Amino acid sequence: MTTPKKNWKTKLFVIIYGTNTPAGKLFDVILLYTIIASILLVMLESVKSIDQHYHTFLNISEWIITILFTVEYILRVVTAKRPWQYIFSFYGLIDLLSTIPKYISLFLGGIHALAALRALRLLRIFRILKLGRYLGASNNLLNALKASRAKISVFLFAVLIIAVILGTIMYMVEGEENGFSNIPKSVYWCIVTLTTVGFGDIAPQTPLGQFIAALIMILGYGIIAVPTGIVSVEYSNQASSTKNSDQNPAEIPQKICPNCLAENHREGAKFCYQCSEKL
Amino acid sequence: MTTPKKNWKTKLFVIIYGTNTPAGKLFDVILLYTIIASILLVMLESVKSIDQHYHTFLNISEWIITILFTVEYILRVVTAKRPWQYIFSFYGLIDLLSTIPKYISLFLGGIHALAALRALRLLRIFRILKLGRYLGASNNLLNALKASRAKISVFLFAVLIIAVILGTIMYMVEGEENGFSNIPKSVYWCIVTLTTVGFGDIAPQTPLGQFIAALIMILGYGIIAVPTGIVSVEYSNQASSTKNSDQNPAEIPQKICPNCLAENHREGAKFCYQCSEKL
Amino acid sequence: MTTPKKNWKTKLFVIIYGTNTPAGKLFDVILLYTIIASILLVMLESVKSIDQHYHTFLNISEWIITILFTVEYILRVVTAKRPWQYIFSFYGLIDLLSTIPKYISLFLGGIHALAALRALRLLRIFRILKLGRYLGASNNLLNALKASRAKISVFLFAVLIIAVILGTIMYMVEGEENGFSNIPKSVYWCIVTLTTVGFGDIAPQTPLGQFIAALIMILGYGIIAVPTGIVSVEYSNQASSTKNSDQNPAEIPQKICPNCLAENHREGAKFCYQCSEKL
Amino acid sequence: MTTPKKNWKTKLFVIIYGTNTPAGKLFDVILLYTIIASILLVMLESVKSIDQHYHTFLNISEWIITILFTVEYILRVVTAKRPWQYIFSFYGLIDLLSTIPKYISLFLGGIHALAALRALRLLRIFRILKLGRYLGASNNLLNALKASRAKISVFLFAVLIIAVILGTIMYMVEGEENGFSNIPKSVYWCIVTLTTVGFGDIAPQTPLGQFIAALIMILGYGIIAVPTGIVSVEYSNQASSTKNSDQNPAEIPQKICPNCLAENHREGAKFCYQCSEKL
Repeated sequence: MTTPKKNWKTKLFVIIYGTNTPAGKLFDVILLYTIIASILLVMLESVKSIDQHYHTFLNISEWIITILFTVEYILRVVTAKRPWQYIFSFYGLIDLLSTIPKYISLFLGGIHALAALRALRLLRIFRILKLGRYLGASNNLLNALKASRAKISVFLFAVLIIAVILGTIMYMVEGEENGFSNIPKSVYWCIVTLTTVGFGDIAPQTPLGQFIAALIMILGYGIIAVPTGIVSVEYSNQASSTKNSDQNPAEIPQKICPNCLAENHREGAKFCYQCSEKL
Repeated sequence: MTTPKKNWKTKLFVIIYGTNTPAGKLFDVILLYTIIASILLVMLESVKSIDQHYHTFLNISEWIITILFTVEYILRVVTAKRPWQYIFSFYGLIDLLSTIPKYISLFLGGIHALAALRALRLLRIFRILKLGRYLGASNNLLNALKASRAKISVFLFAVLIIAVILGTIMYMVEGEENGFSNIPKSVYWCIVTLTTVGFGDIAPQTPLGQFIAALIMILGYGIIAVPTGIVSVEYSNQASSTKNSDQNPAEIPQKICPNCLAENHREGAKFCYQCSEKL
Repeated sequence: MTTPKKNWKTKLFVIIYGTNTPAGKLFDVILLYTIIASILLVMLESVKSIDQHYHTFLNISEWIITILFTVEYILRVVTAKRPWQYIFSFYGLIDLLSTIPKYISLFLGGIHALAALRALRLLRIFRILKLGRYLGASNNLLNALKASRAKISVFLFAVLIIAVILGTIMYMVEGEENGFSNIPKSVYWCIVTLTTVGFGDIAPQTPLGQFIAALIMILGYGIIAVPTGIVSVEYSNQASSTKNSDQNPAEIPQKICPNCLAENHREGAKFCYQCSEKL
Repeated sequence: MTTPKKNWKTKLFVIIYGTNTPAGKLFDVILLYTIIASILLVMLESVKSIDQHYHTFLNISEWIITILFTVEYILRVVTAKRPWQYIFSFYGLIDLLSTIPKYISLFLGGIHALAALRALRLLRIFRILKLGRYLGASNNLLNALKASRAKISVFLFAVLIIAVILGTIMYMVEGEENGFSNIPKSVYWCIVTLTTVGFGDIAPQTPLGQFIAALIMILGYGIIAVPTGIVSVEYSNQASSTKNSDQNPAEIPQKICPNCLAENHREGAKFCYQCSEKL
């Protein structure tokens, strides 16, 4: 009889993938802190002076976290009803890629090129954003951003066109001798100026260049109003439409299909909307 | 009998100038990508290291695009009922000026001064903006920007006056030895600071200059609210007025007069409002 | 009999001080362009390379403008019923101070220290702002700014307190060796950072300093929303309250008292509200 | 009989801790100016050139202020019914710590390390913020900020995550040779760029790095709209809800418990809500 085993797997599944049981929440919170700790370790390792003094401590800590992540990965694969679907999912690949580099370093040593691979671990922070659903479920802000996404994209595309045209003009006006060595660099400078960042590593030197730069700045200063206006109005609409509705989606417990990992099932749904697995 | 020929010309006219037939849309999309490709080529050519390695490829690609643009230009002239009107129109001149430089380079060689002429091709990107009508027809944002144009202009004019006055004061306070070598440069610095760009190529060194600079920054930080407020309110008004109207201008197919190229004919119009040509 | 003379003076008074007769408007527009020309001259004079080449032209032009301003000043004094009141008014002093420097340069020569005095002429640009009444009479924006002035002041005061506290902390953290040579300079740096200007002439070098700087930036990025929110809401209120009122103050002709120069008389007023002079 | 003495203590208590009697207001205003003067002294002392010339004046002034603060501190301890509660309160500790350093300098001399301790005096400026209640009591802005605090925190947290991810990518792309010497520094640079501050002490040098930097800037330029939109809408809600209510909390005199220093007692309250002391 496999019932006890299946029960064990189902329980683990609910803890690891689910978020609406006490154990599931605890698992997610521990995972969150482990990821933050692992990010801090990657950060500290990149600082040479710290790495020299605390190399052993950092190395051991990272091994502990790597093993924890390995165990978690194996459990995720084992408990999922369709393991391959998980393995090739976005999060599955990140989980794998963020765990492997440390093992590879065993064979190849602490080669500098591996630093890049290890930093992939950082992408696991997206898993934290899964928790954002609690914060964001009833969040008008997210809806406002979604509603204004198309308009902001058009706006940013227009900004890009302006940057290309003005960047080319600046390349012709200032030329290579003043740091505007090619058109892509000029466009980069134009974006730096238009967004009011203004590094100053490249700055116009000719009077005409400075005049055009002043126009670009005033333009950038003026058009920053556009995305702000869009978000304000959309958010205002979202906020007023929420007042009228009395549903609070944050209250609805979130179910997850143990078969295909689909989320966001309808309230009271008995079967998964994707694979018809019983919930 | 010239009917078949006229039909051929009319068909081409609808494809090239019109935007509401499948062939016309396809033509515009191809044109869009060709312009983007040509801009990328101009950009890459300006990067010395790339130009040295891929000079032949870039040169051939540009010749292909130049020939495509030439064919397009000739077809536009041939199909237009009043060719001279097209040739001396804004887009007609850009079309010509963005195509010629490559041919001139045949006789004069790749002289650096011609780079400026070739970059004029970039102005063709404005033709892409013609496609913006699809996006923008029902766009409240554009209307909001038009409605707030006058107010934002007054605001930017006020910013300019402030910049001139404060720039002159900074010139008197800091003087030539600290980089404020003349009043136009000081005004330029003042705009850089007021718009919160802050390159840092010129920065006040005296305590009094830094004090005034701090005031300018706080002023700039405070008045950035003004255009934002204008756009927010106008956009909000546009959004609420659209809800009440049930017309959707984006749905109305756009006609174009084959004689005088006039656009924006009334719905159901049978004759051009400019030249009485039958539509 | 002094009637013809008085008529002559009254007519000139209406032209010079008034703005609601064709001649008065023409006078103001000419004055506007003369001031702009004089500002451009002051600007160009400050550019050494231009001053060397066109010194004679600039000098003669400035003399012409100075003489025009002198004539205008004398006419203003003569036509005003109470000349001393004009002479010691704000605009009267600016008119005098912006005209004198050129005459002084006759006796003292083109000494550099006089450049500062000549630049005072720039303050005459405020007279242009008088014309702003035409633009601004029915302007909700100005009312919105007045309504939110108190709140924005409180906000900017809070920003200043934050800048002082954080600036002192940065002075302690970074110290003189990293450019934070004293507390006022650190506070200046803090304002530069908080307002997202970011010159980069001073930048934190220690990890702790960079961490605090990052917090300051995020703070500045977050609180820029405050003045924007204030202006948006106030402007929105102004805009909606104007819709309900059907008075258009821009239509009311502006009268000016020929005796005491008081403006903004009530519609249909027969006597000046300040000096009871008949209007 | 201790009545006269108690009366004396109670009167002083009302003056020092209370803010709704003429004497109490006067005390607060004098304290405000003394704190501002002391801050200016600390600032001026940190400027070497000023300190060298006016050392004696600055030193004596600081001793006077230190003695005033000492007297105030002793009076606060004496008049408070529960002195220890005051001494270990937040303001009590700041009062003590901001007064002590000058006395310590007597024994240890003007050692540079003490400058840090003396600067703690600056924290007393928070006491000024107590006066902010007058300004802020009926202030919709403060309520709007409180209402949007959670949303802005989520937003800033998201900004931080983006900064960490993009900072690591920039560290991999640019590397140590271009100033991105470790991940924390890259994250710091990313915050500098995302918030449009743009110091320019670190700037990307590789084309790929500049491309990613351009994306970061456009992202930062776009998402600045988010906090602005939040504050605008919340402030708008606060403003409209205030119009409907006719209570003006600023009018209610503020009482303070002479025993436990609790504030914000209900209108007409006869006993302290914390310690039942008669008010």
